[in-house]
Parts: sequence; C-alpha cells; structure tokens
Amino acid sequence: MFRNRTSQTMTKLVYSFGGGSADGRSEMRELLGGKGANLAEMASLGLPVPPGFTITTDVCTAYYDNGSKYPDDLEAAVAKALETIEATTDRKFGDPARPLLVSVRSGARVSMPGMMDTVLNLGLNEETVAGLAIQSGSERFAWDSYRRFVQMYADVVMGADHGMFEEQIELRKERKGIVLDTDLDANDWRELALKFKQLVHEDLDEPFPDDPKAQLWGAISAVFQSWQTPRAATYRRLHDIPESWGTAVNVQAMVFGNMGDTSATGVAFTRDPSTGEKMFYGEFLVNAQGEDVVAGIRTPQSLTIQGREAQESELLSMEEAMPEVFGQLLEVQADLERHYRDMQDIEFTVEEGRLWMLQTRSGKRTAKAAVRIAVEMAGEGLITKDEAVLRVDPASLDQLLHPMLDPNAERTLLARGLPASPGAVSGEVVFNADEAESLSQAGVDVILVRVETSPEDIHGMHAARGILTSRGGMTSHAAVVARGMGRSCVAGAGEVVVDYAKGVFRAGGREIKKGERITLDGGQGHVYLGAVPTLSPELSEDFARLMEMADSARKLRVRTNAETPADAEVALSFGAEGIGLCRTEHMFFDAERIVSVREMIMADDKMGRQAALAKLLPMQRQDFHDLFRIMSGLPVTIRLLDPPLHEFLPHTDDEMAEIARVSGKSLDAIRERAARLTEANPMLGHRGCRLAITYPEIYEMQARAIFEAAGALAEETGKPVIPEVMIPLVATKAEIERMKALVDAVAKAVAAETGRAVEYQVGTMIELPRAALRAADIAEHAEFFSFGTNDLTQTTFGLSRDDAASFLDSYLRQGVLEKDPFVSLDPEGVGELIEIAAERGRKTRPDIKLGICGEHGGDPASVEFCHSAGLDYVSCSPYRTPIARLAAGQAAIKAKA
Amino acid sequence: MFRNRTSQTMTKLVYSFGGGSADGRSEMRELLGGKGANLAEMASLGLPVPPGFTITTDVCTAYYDNGSKYPDDLEAAVAKALETIEATTDRKFGDPARPLLVSVRSGARVSMPGMMDTVLNLGLNEETVAGLAIQSGSERFAWDSYRRFVQMYADVVMGADHGMFEEQIELRKERKGIVLDTDLDANDWRELALKFKQLVHEDLDEPFPDDPKAQLWGAISAVFQSWQTPRAATYRRLHDIPESWGTAVNVQAMVFGNMGDTSATGVAFTRDPSTGEKMFYGEFLVNAQGEDVVAGIRTPQSLTIQGREAQESELLSMEEAMPEVFGQLLEVQADLERHYRDMQDIEFTVEEGRLWMLQTRSGKRTAKAAVRIAVEMAGEGLITKDEAVLRVDPASLDQLLHPMLDPNAERTLLARGLPASPGAVSGEVVFNADEAESLSQAGVDVILVRVETSPEDIHGMHAARGILTSRGGMTSHAAVVARGMGRSCVAGAGEVVVDYAKGVFRAGGREIKKGERITLDGGQGHVYLGAVPTLSPELSEDFARLMEMADSARKLRVRTNAETPADAEVALSFGAEGIGLCRTEHMFFDAERIVSVREMIMADDKMGRQAALAKLLPMQRQDFHDLFRIMSGLPVTIRLLDPPLHEFLPHTDDEMAEIARVSGKSLDAIRERAARLTEANPMLGHRGCRLAITYPEIYEMQARAIFEAAGALAEETGKPVIPEVMIPLVATKAEIERMKALVDAVAKAVAAETGRAVEYQVGTMIELPRAALRAADIAEHAEFFSFGTNDLTQTTFGLSRDDAASFLDSYLRQGVLEKDPFVSLDPEGVGELIEIAAERGRKTRPDIKLGICGEHGGDPASVEFCHSAGLDYVSCSPYRTPIARLAAGQAAIKAKA
Repeated sequence: MFRNRTSQTMTKLVYSFGGGSADGRSEMRELLGGKGANLAEMASLGLPVPPGFTITTDVCTAYYDNGSKYPDDLEAAVAKALETIEATTDRKFGDPARPLLVSVRSGARVSMPGMMDTVLNLGLNEETVAGLAIQSGSERFAWDSYRRFVQMYADVVMGADHGMFEEQIELRKERKGIVLDTDLDANDWRELALKFKQLVHEDLDEPFPDDPKAQLWGAISAVFQSWQTPRAATYRRLHDIPESWGTAVNVQAMVFGNMGDTSATGVAFTRDPSTGEKMFYGEFLVNAQGEDVVAGIRTPQSLTIQGREAQESELLSMEEAMPEVFGQLLEVQADLERHYRDMQDIEFTVEEGRLWMLQTRSGKRTAKAAVRIAVEMAGEGLITKDEAVLRVDPASLDQLLHPMLDPNAERTLLARGLPASPGAVSGEVVFNADEAESLSQAGVDVILVRVETSPEDIHGMHAARGILTSRGGMTSHAAVVARGMGRSCVAGAGEVVVDYAKGVFRAGGREIKKGERITLDGGQGHVYLGAVPTLSPELSEDFARLMEMADSARKLRVRTNAETPADAEVALSFGAEGIGLCRTEHMFFDAERIVSVREMIMADDKMGRQAALAKLLPMQRQDFHDLFRIMSGLPVTIRLLDPPLHEFLPHTDDEMAEIARVSGKSLDAIRERAARLTEANPMLGHRGCRLAITYPEIYEMQARAIFEAAGALAEETGKPVIPEVMIPLVATKAEIERMKALVDAVAKAVAAETGRAVEYQVGTMIELPRAALRAADIAEHAEFFSFGTNDLTQTTFGLSRDDAASFLDSYLRQGVLEKDPFVSLDPEGVGELIEIAAERGRKTRPDIKLGICGEHGGDPASVEFCHSAGLDYVSCSPYRTPIARLAAGQAAIKAKA
Repeated sequence: MFRNRTSQTMTKLVYSFGGGSADGRSEMRELLGGKGANLAEMASLGLPVPPGFTITTDVCTAYYDNGSKYPDDLEAAVAKALETIEATTDRKFGDPARPLLVSVRSGARVSMPGMMDTVLNLGLNEETVAGLAIQSGSERFAWDSYRRFVQMYADVVMGADHGMFEEQIELRKERKGIVLDTDLDANDWRELALKFKQLVHEDLDEPFPDDPKAQLWGAISAVFQSWQTPRAATYRRLHDIPESWGTAVNVQAMVFGNMGDTSATGVAFTRDPSTGEKMFYGEFLVNAQGEDVVAGIRTPQSLTIQGREAQESELLSMEEAMPEVFGQLLEVQADLERHYRDMQDIEFTVEEGRLWMLQTRSGKRTAKAAVRIAVEMAGEGLITKDEAVLRVDPASLDQLLHPMLDPNAERTLLARGLPASPGAVSGEVVFNADEAESLSQAGVDVILVRVETSPEDIHGMHAARGILTSRGGMTSHAAVVARGMGRSCVAGAGEVVVDYAKGVFRAGGREIKKGERITLDGGQGHVYLGAVPTLSPELSEDFARLMEMADSARKLRVRTNAETPADAEVALSFGAEGIGLCRTEHMFFDAERIVSVREMIMADDKMGRQAALAKLLPMQRQDFHDLFRIMSGLPVTIRLLDPPLHEFLPHTDDEMAEIARVSGKSLDAIRERAARLTEANPMLGHRGCRLAITYPEIYEMQARAIFEAAGALAEETGKPVIPEVMIPLVATKAEIERMKALVDAVAKAVAAETGRAVEYQVGTMIELPRAALRAADIAEHAEFFSFGTNDLTQTTFGLSRDDAASFLDSYLRQGVLEKDPFVSLDPEGVGELIEIAAERGRKTRPDIKLGICGEHGGDPASVEFCHSAGLDYVSCSPYRTPIARLAAGQAAIKAKA
C-alpha cells in the first residue's frame, strides 16, 4: 500500500475513462474503488460512458498520512484529466458558452453508507448557467439545475443546513399560490438560486464559490473528508473494512435525463432481484434526473412490456416509448451480465435520445433470488458450479428455512432484543414451561416469556412456538436451545419487564397479560403486539440443487446436534450425515424421568444411586433405540452425562417438598444436599467425566443403555449400529483411560448377557485447553475427538458465556473484540488449540476422527476454519445444517483457489 | 527396566556380599534396593557385614509380569548364593550340627512402610534347634530363638493371628506364677514352640514348614507379595513411588546379640538427628536382639559416656562396658559418614565380642538438624556448598518458621482437616470476623471458626491467630489468605459442624462454645481441645548460612505477595527481593473504605463512580506510599483491581440496609443491583481488566494513586521509585493496548500536575490460556508478564478451585491426578502454556521480565519448573520466601549437574 511508497513512486494519481477507452480496469478496484473500476471497465468495453476520471484511493491514504495535504503533482494530473474530458465532450469547464458540467462522487472498494454521495451539475455559476440555457434550449432547466447544484453543494460540501432551502421553495410556492415545483418558472428558480447563495454566505460566513475549479476541489476534499465521518467509521467497524483502504473520487461529465421527452433516466436489474427469475427488470422516468427516481414523487414506468403488464400499469414501458434506445439498453445489459458473470444493477440516462451508462455493479438480491440466480447461471454455463456455490451467503439461508413476517403487514413494535433464533411466529403469551406444554397440547400456539430459561424449561420451550427472554445473550441457554430446536427466539430484550406474580410483562409502554397474542421476529430480534401475518418458507428445487453442488465440493461432513426424534428427523431432511452430539442430559428433564434423576442425586450411597439409575435405564435405552432407528446406520455420537448434578435439582419450595416426599427424606436433608451441591463456578465444577470418576454407576447405566439399544436394533434390522460414545470434560490421559475401560467393561458385559456384540468407538470432547495440549496422550485412548468449542472458548478466554452479556457488548462496541467469540470461533486463540490438538492427536493415532460440535458448527466463518484445520466433520443444530453444508462447500472451493 | 528385556538377558538375578567383598555397589540401589545396595557397599568397604545375598528388584517385576512366577534360573542362583554364605560362615543351611540361620528382609529403592519387614532365625526346625543349642551353649537360647521364628514366620509369612501366641505365653506364665518372659526356661520355650506350630496348623489348616528351603522360599514370596498390599500401595501413591520399581529381597546370615553378656545390639546416628550436633549418638542393649531395642521393654543404654551423662543414666555406656568393640564401632561410623558423605543411621550387633554391621543409611532428621548438618558438613569440607543446599528439603523449612506443638504435651484431638497453613496456635473460639477483631484488639488470642471465609472476613483473619474452616480445600480462600498472612489454618475439616446461630461448633463428639479455647496445628491439619503447649521457632545462624549458599547458587529472584506493611516487613526479613504481587482489592475491604467501594458500585453513572473513587484515592495513595517506603527501591508490582464487583457487596440484610442508608437508595434498588451483579461463574465473569474496559475510572484512580505516591516518596527520599503496574485477566492484545494507554495517560497527567515524572513499567498477568498463546501480541504492549498460575490452572483444567475440593480428593486417591494442581504446578499442561508464553513473549520483546505470582511460587517442585522455564523470578507468600529461595538454589544446582 501507499504507506510503503514514496510520493515519487506513486506515479499515476488520476485515471481517465470515456470515449471508448480507459486507463483503468475492473480488477483495479483497490486503487480505483468499486465505482471507478466499473466505469473504467464499462468504458473500455466500448459502452457509452460519460467521460471522466478517478482520483485513486492512494491519494486518500496519502492525504490522511500527510496532515490533509495532497501529493504535489495531483493538481496537474487533475487539470490534465479535465482537459481530456473537455476534448471528448467538446465542452469546457467554466466556459460561459459551452460549459462542461461534472458530477463528483465518492467510490470506496465497497459501497459504504455514511460517505459523501454525489454532487451534480458542478461547474455552474451565474455565467455558465447562461451557456447551459442555450445548450439545453431551456432557461428554466438551466436555473433549476443551478439551484439544485447550490443546494446540493452547500449541503454536502459546505455543511449548510439544507432545511432552509426547502423552506425558501415552500415560501415561494405559497406566495405564488401554487403547489407543485413544476409550476415554478425560470425566473423563480433564478431568484431562488441567488437567494440560496446569499443564505449560504450569511449562514456559513463564507461566499458560495463561483469558480468551477474551486468548486471541484471543494467537492474532492469533501469526498476524502467523508471517509472519516463517525458514521463511515462505524460502518467500517461493523463490516470489517480497514481504515487503510481509503476512498477514490470519481469526476464525470454530466449527462441530463431531464432535457425533454427524448431524455430519461432509469435503473435496472439484469434478473429479478427478489425472485431471481431471468427477466430484464427495471424502471425509468422520462425527462428526469436520477434523484427523481429515488425521490418517488413521480411513478416510474416499467422498462419492458412484460413488466408493465405484470404491474397492470397504464404508463408506457420504455420498450414501447423508446424502442430504439431500449433495444440498445437490452444489448448493453446482456453484455454486462455476460461480462461480469453476475446479475447486474445498472443506472443509465438517456440524454436527447442517446444512452449513457452511469453505473453497473453486482445487484443486491434476496436469499431466494441468490439461490436461483446462482443455480441458473451455472445451468446456463455462465459460471461454474463452484462459483455458484460461492455466490450465496450461507448465513442468508436462514431466511429460506423459517417463516418471515409479511413485509406488507402492519405492525406495532413492543421491544427489541437479540436475534437469537430466526423465524417469525405468533402466539399467546405464557410465563411458565408447564403452562406452555399444557396449552400447546390443547392446540394453542404459545410464546414462552421468561426472564431467562434453564434446563427445567426445556419441555415448555419445545411446546412453544417461540421464546422471549429479558436477560441473556446470543449464547444464553434460551438462545442455544431455541436454535437447536428451531424455535424462534428473541433473547435479552432488556426493555421487557416480566412480572411473574401478576402474570404480565411490560414493554413499549404497554402491559401484556398472559393469554394476549404477540409476534416474535427471531431473525431481527423484534417483538410485536398482536398476531402479525407471516409468510411460510418454501424450499425450492434450486435450493436442493445448490446444496448438491455444495455437497460435491465439500470435504467436511456435516452432522447435527440432536437428542429428540423430531430434531433428528428435521436434521436428516436438511441433509445431516449423522449425529455429532446427542446431549443425554436433555433426556433427563422429562417429567417422568426427573423424579428418578433426583432420587439418584439424593441417594446416600452407591446402592441407592444404582436403584434409581435402574429406573432410568429402560427409558434411556428407548431414547437411543429411537435415535439409532431414525439415523439408520449413520454415525451417532452420544455424549454421556455432562452437567453438574445440581442442575437437576429443584429450586422452589414445592418441588423440594415433592422430592422429600418421593425420596422419604426430610425437607432439611434435601435442602442441605442441594446446598452442598451448589458450586461457586459450576462451569468449572463437578461435571462431565468428573461425575463418573466419583459415581461410575451413572456412565455404566448410560453405556448399558447404548449397547443394549444398539444390539437390539441391529438384530431387528439386520444392519449394524456403530455408536460413538463420547466422554465429556476430559483434561487428563488418566480420565479417558478409565472411562474407556468403564465403557469397554460394560460393552463386554452386555455382549455376554445378550449374546450380541456391538461395534463401537469411544472418544472424547476436547473442550479444555489442557486436553488440547495433551492430545497426544489422550489419543492413546480416544478414537475420536469432538471439539466442544463452547466450553473451549469459555476456558481459553476465561469467559463465562452466561455472564459475558453484561460486558461483551461494550467489548464489541469499543472494538476490543471484533466478533462475539461464542458466535464465531476465535481463530487465533481457540483455533490454535484446535490445530495443536488435531496435530498431536493425529500423530498418536493417524486415523483419529476429528469434529466440532459447539455452536460454531453452524457459523460459516467457523466452518471455514474447521475445513482449513483439516477436521473431518462439523456438527450443528438441525436448522443450521444447510448453512454448514454450503459453508463447507465454499471453504473447500476457496481452499482450492 | 525388566519389561524391555527377555528373561535370557536378565543375567544376574542374585548378588552376593560378605567376607570382605560384594557383587553389588551402593550405586545399584535401583536393582538391589536401598538395603541391599548398602549392605553390598559396606561389605566391599571391608566392614564386618554378615554374609548374604540380594534378589534383585527385576525379579520382583518379572514375578508380577508373569503371573506370580519366578524366572527359571532363580532357584539355582539362590542355591549357589546360599552355598557362598555357607562357605563364608562355615555353617550349613538345615544342618543339624552347624545350622546356618538367615534373616529375610524386603528392600525397595526407598524405605517403605507396609512392606514385609523381617523374618529372623530362618532355618530352624526341631532338628537344627539342637545344633543351635550346642553352638550357642544355651538350650534356652535355642528354643527361645525357635519360638521367635515360628511366631514371626507364622505372622508375616503365613498370615496367622499373632494374638494367639502372646496368649499362650501369658497362660504359661500365669500357670507358673511368674511375670517376666525371662523367667521362662528352656523347657517352657520348647513346649511353647511346639504348641505354636500346632496352633498354626489348626488355625491355617496347613503345617508349619520344617524344611529350611521351603521356609526360605515362603519368606521370599511373602516379601514380593507384600509389594502389592493396600498399605504399600497407599504409601507409594502418597510418596510418588512408581509401582514399577518393585522390591528386592535380602537374605543374610544371622548374627546374635543375645548370646550372653559379650553380645549386644544397637542403633546409632553419626550426628544428633534432632539437633544436628556433630556427636556420635545411639543406644544399645546387652544380650538382646534387634527387636528388643525397638520393643522398649528394657531401657537401652547410651553408647557414649557423654550420652550417658547427658541422660543422667546409671547404666554403663558401651564406651565403658565394651571399650574395644566401641572403639571399632566409632571408627566404622566415622568411616561410613566419610564414605557416604552424609549423616548415617546405623544398626549393629555384637556377637560374643565381635562387631557386625547390619545396616547403614542416611539418617532421618528434623528440619533443624538437616540445616545444621548440611551447613557444618560444608564447613568441614565433607560436602560442597551446592551439596549442602541440596541436602535440605525446602518444604521442611515450614517447621522452622512457625511455632510447633510441644511433642511431649498431652492433647485431645477434636477433628482433622487439611494442613492449609502451618503453625501451632491456641486461642478462644469466635465465629465472626468483627468479633475476632474486637477481641484481638482487647488482647485476646482468638481462633476464627467459619464454614468458609470470604474477602469480607479478611480483617478478622488478620486479627485471629488461626483459622479453622469446615469447608474448602488447600487453595480455598481461607487457605490462600492464611498462608499469605502467615496465620495457622486448618481448612475443610468436614467433621466440624458449625452452628452460627447457637454460637457453637461440634466435633469429636463434643460441643465447643464461643470463648472456649482450642489449639490448631496447621502443619498437620489437626484441631485439639484446649490450649496445647507449643514451642517457638528460632531461626539459627545455620539457617542464615544455608540461605546464603542457596542465594549464591540460584538464578531466580524471589519476591513476595504482600499488600500490608506488616506482610511486606515479614517478607523482607525472610529475604524477599521485592513485591511480585500486591493485590489492591485486599485494600478495599478495610472498614472505612468498603463503604466508599460500595458507593462506587451502587452509583448510577460515571460521575457517581468518580465521586466515590475520589474518596478512595487518598487512602490508596497512602497504601502505596507505605509499601514503596518499606521496600525502599526494591521492585513493587501492583495489580489493579481484579475481582468481580459483586465480591464487595454485602450479603446480610443489615449490611444491605446500611448501604441503602449511605447511598440514599431504596433497599429494593440495592438488592436489585446486587442480584444483577450476581454471576453464574464469577471466576469467568466481569472482572480484571474487563472492569476497566467498562469502568475505566477505577483503574484511573488506582494508577493516579500509584504515581502520586511514587512521585512524592521519590521526592522525600531522593531515591527513585519504579512501580510496576500490572493489568489482570488480559486475553487479547486490544485489552493490554488500551490499559497501557490508560495508565500512560494518567502518568502523564500526574507528571504535568505535580511536576514529578515517575519511571514505571506496565505489564500483565498471564492467567488465561489465550493470553499465553497470544503472548507475542500482548508483549507488544506489556513490559513484563507475571504468570497467575492459580487462575491459569483453573482455566487450563477447567477446574474451579473453590469447587474442586468435592472431587479432587477422589481424583488423588484413585490416582487420576498425581498431585493437586493448585498446590504443585502441572508441568505438562499449565507448564506448556507458560513455556509457550515465555518463548513468544521474548521473541517480541527480548528483555521482557517474566515471573510467577500464583500460590505455586512457594512450592519447591513448581519453583524448579520456573527455573527450567527460564523465568526471572517467583513471588510467593511472605512465610514461603525461604522455601522459594532454597528451592530456587536447588533448581539451579540440579540444572548444572
């Protein structure tokens, strides 16, 4: 970049284009910005582009590095480029007879809100305005143009209050007793223009510049300065755009779409940006300038007859009104799409029957359109299948997999929270899980509203259509579980004040009672009053084709995190290739089981625990039997019990009393046991395999359930079931060694009892830094590693995901962290541990299977990391399966390049 | 080891010794065990050792590897070695006329309780006993020896109930109306011996063996089998002795100290094992066997005249009674000490005027003796200074630095807990910190008894002489703080049931009321009823000399963790070379400050916080001024506020009400704020530099206090003060970058205001795995790293030290972990992170200062790790300073070797 060059070596500061050729090319986006590169490219393609020049982004960088001073030779270069425009257009900058007017626009490498946009008609003053009147044959047009220029320039370059201009126009119309601007005549505009200049002078205490050169340099400096506005800086931070990129400045001869009925201006897409259909699509306005289209005062006309008919419009299409220019445009747009090999968003102007191309760029599109365009372009041979896969943003698929709010529906916003799990749903408000379940069983759609959720609420979350919490972040319990279940969730909506006692919540100045309807938009994090209509998702044929292309490119396998038959089936339908994480503890919260679980926890000795576990055995066996059956032969990784026992204990007095009754112990004894199990930092406490070191009978029961189920199903179906038994929270070789021995012993015992030997693997989560470092040791006893990146992130950062919400926001806002490390895997810290573990694990056991099963498995950037770290699979929540498949395909394709 | 050899290559199974030569040497301890190697060495030195042979430890290993079967050629080798003994002694095994009798003893590499000890007189039966009678000239002696053999063999080899033998002897004495064993005659012993054999046969349903060969193999097998007894296994686990070492078996010709008045047996130390004084020291018994000395039935006589006089004994010393043999022994002991270059523990027997050496080994000694012996031997030139440094176990120094229980004092044990902080202290029981403080101010010695302690109890812990908790581990709050303050502490005494409401605790079947006296022995973890007399520590000249030798060897600097002037002064007196960790939060709990701290926490905005912080500023400034003054120029590392704010909030209703009053807020508001600050995992929560990212004003106040104090003191003394400002809990480069900028800005501001610029350094704790991995980045802004190994251990293992107590014990007992990683640094996991961080940090900043400031800084093994990892210093609690100095010296010396 520029910082490493001296100003001597920065030879070319200004790139000209137009008149059928250009100094620049499309590939010079870094130097010329997106707009400049595209204008150069169009010009060099021989398309009709108004001549102009681009001041490079290097000049911007130099400007800031040198205390807002330009390189010495810039002025000469600009003057020379201006002469080239003058020669091409046969007009002259500042010439009263044939004045050259130009536009000045910013143009960074990527389009960026917050930057100075456009100054039009630059070069006008009280002398040149006369020349324009003669050239255009319209005094009114000339003065109207001048007053527009003064308005725009004073606003964006000089920073004047633009309200005062509108006020003057309104005053004038009032005085004349007219309503429309179009009823103002040449004289009105002349007087207004002069008044504007006077007002600017008074307001800013400096005269409005009349010298076109001064106008030009004012505008150029305004563009460069706009690179550093707070809004631009914020946008850059949010979109990972380095400050060092800088912006270019584009100066271009004006063309006028408002020179009468043979003039026009318009915008077009080479395909339908909302459906993706291959159909030239756009709008134009006769006798208008670009901003008139945007302003929406006049109804634009369709470009094509087909478009006009579809809109049932009575206004003539361009195809009908200007058939010749339309034909030219049709060719140009086809050329552009072919040239750029992507759907283009085009701006054009027709000046007195002559077509000018002002802009072309890849068009924004809906997720649905993106999929269709990519698939169809691949079908047309315009792009390769790999390119098609790269064309769709994996995260955008969320839009296709969940219902969305009808964009046309009216709505009343109650509150905003975090977009924790996508999907738009309506339902009646309930405040506890049991009620959610019973109402749902009665056929009522419910939204579960809680301050926060805990594992005890799982049945209610499952029963609800959506979950709203007032506390917690993107990786809070509510968010994680809702994403896993595919339930819509708005989390951490701080404005929502829940009052359980009264059965109401307050938000947006209203009180919502239990039973009232609300609507959640989990993809946006919005909460609306009442039932807002939604649109159902449809998975198109194109979607399936895109997935196939991604599948054939990717190296990573994609599994899912699922415990319930429902989740497993959803994931299968989304193309999951196995279960990467079955969290057995989720199976323990079921109403008929939790009693036995609690009995087990309350038992005084091993015998008591075993008696309680014996009651759980048949249920666990059935769980696994169901999962194995649904996954019919696909791998299923079952994680043995992980959370601290305390999580299963009740918190309310009533529930405590019930356990006391069931277990035959005193309420005090129950309370004491609960208090004893309470931990200062449960995340780092007595959980995972630590439970099984102290109470091996728990894992023994679970292993037995697995092997009995696998054996029985294999016998029923005649197909082998090869379960993968996963030991959580291993930190040392001794732990996995003992756990493997425990599982092996149970497998042997079950085989001996049933006569059915089951093939299986034993592996471990790598979720502690020590486990990653000691992977070589651990791999001696583990046949697979699954990176538990949620916990690995917690321990590597020393950051509790339950508590981070209170300050993570501040970290992201201040830029201390670029991304929430629980959402997107931290490649530098957590990532290095994964790489270390993968390398060391493979050294010990070359065929060790490596996967990831944290929330990151459904995050595209994290999936790309997993690909480059050489993992074998990612496992994600069921609804994220397609995202992971696409991201994995993209990762493989990018790595090839 | 044997596992890698085939039985063919295991050429020599049996090593002979005696008759002035030996197959083995002292260095062959691994193969021959400690006893066998020493016997061989003594024999080869030409000392009078009864001839014998050693079966190697490899045989033990082979025995266990091959299902309790011996190598094929062992029998022949034993037979051959036995012949050598026969030849040397001119006796024959099993010969009725001149029977050879042998002893059989175990002998592992290190002496180990729980192993089979000794079988004497093996080879006797009803035939050979007659030969012994003729040889010894005493029928009584012969039958007494036989019955002893039967008793011993039946007990340790055959596993008979030894009570029945004693019963028979008592019965016989009753029947004869006599009291002493010595009054039993030859016939009595004969009949008893035969009765014993009959009883064994009846009891075990197998005959007592008469064949000497069978006796010998029985005893050999018993030795090998005793390697695997539960008691031996437990001892090995506790002392880090690998099972693979195995034990050797020593078979040796019997000599008899009980062959009349020219025979004797005794034990001796070449120096006084309790004081270390250079003085031949020991006891003997005329006409006795070894076990008679141990049994304590007869009062042993002193070896020397000096000893007899010191004990004011009327029994002749050996020097007087057997001057010739004594002279020989005196020479031998001097030779042995010179040869082994260490104080020796010697066993000998005199058989009819002839001296036989049975054993020599390095003698056990008190810490005080160890220091004196090491220093004096270095002075004598017997060992080098480096060797002297290596001779003292650093951990044993604790004994010298704290009062101990008078070993002769009577005591009633109430409970056992963890030996959390050494020292024996008595005091009145109190149950809360405020009371501890007020009673202590009134001159009462108090023991603070709590279920567990928290930072709010610090003033009470400081006021108390000792702390007893019923919950928590070796690194619980109570344990860590008590060690830091040098207070005695027994932690996690589970048998102690505290009833705050009644003001009592229950333990050992008693109820102890507030105000009753108890005694803690923090070095042992014992709690005693009443006031048990104690002995004060004295630091000898020898201690100072040893420290000097260690200091001149060590590379590591030794600093201390201290906040109070008292702690800093103690540490200085123990040789601390600076403060490595000043935990500023400890300064916040003072009664007059906590109110302002809480006000700061309760403030609604930055201004409110700043107002409260302004009140704290002068106090913090005074804190630092005091510390800087005491440390006069030595480095002082100050850690800015680290714990979550919640730790400073009150928990009781009364205290909540007080804050409400002071802050002018409602009680509900206080409660709500407290609830909002509560965290699921505070260890991983909003703490350390995370507080300063959200509330920079806290660190700003602390930095200001540091620079104002340093500047003022420098002006007063004319000597520069160079504070080291330490930022806790850094995980990313951005954090340290911002914190450094914050500190720099304050330094600049203070310099501008006061006209006094202070030189300083800014560094960080490395206490999160991510910080260790990103050390290269972090070192760009950190001038030093201090490894916070407590937190680094917690995060690397994913193990909360507050919660680990509930299962860590089970981990250690089962051998899943070898050591508590909070006590001794885990070199494989945490250690690798330290090495990574050191290497990467130095790569960025070659002169970066590296230290450690966790609890591990006072653990000798951890200090050794720090030396080998190339750190610059360790920092430990004040009372551990000498331990760290010695350990650092040893580490440097070992590394040279």
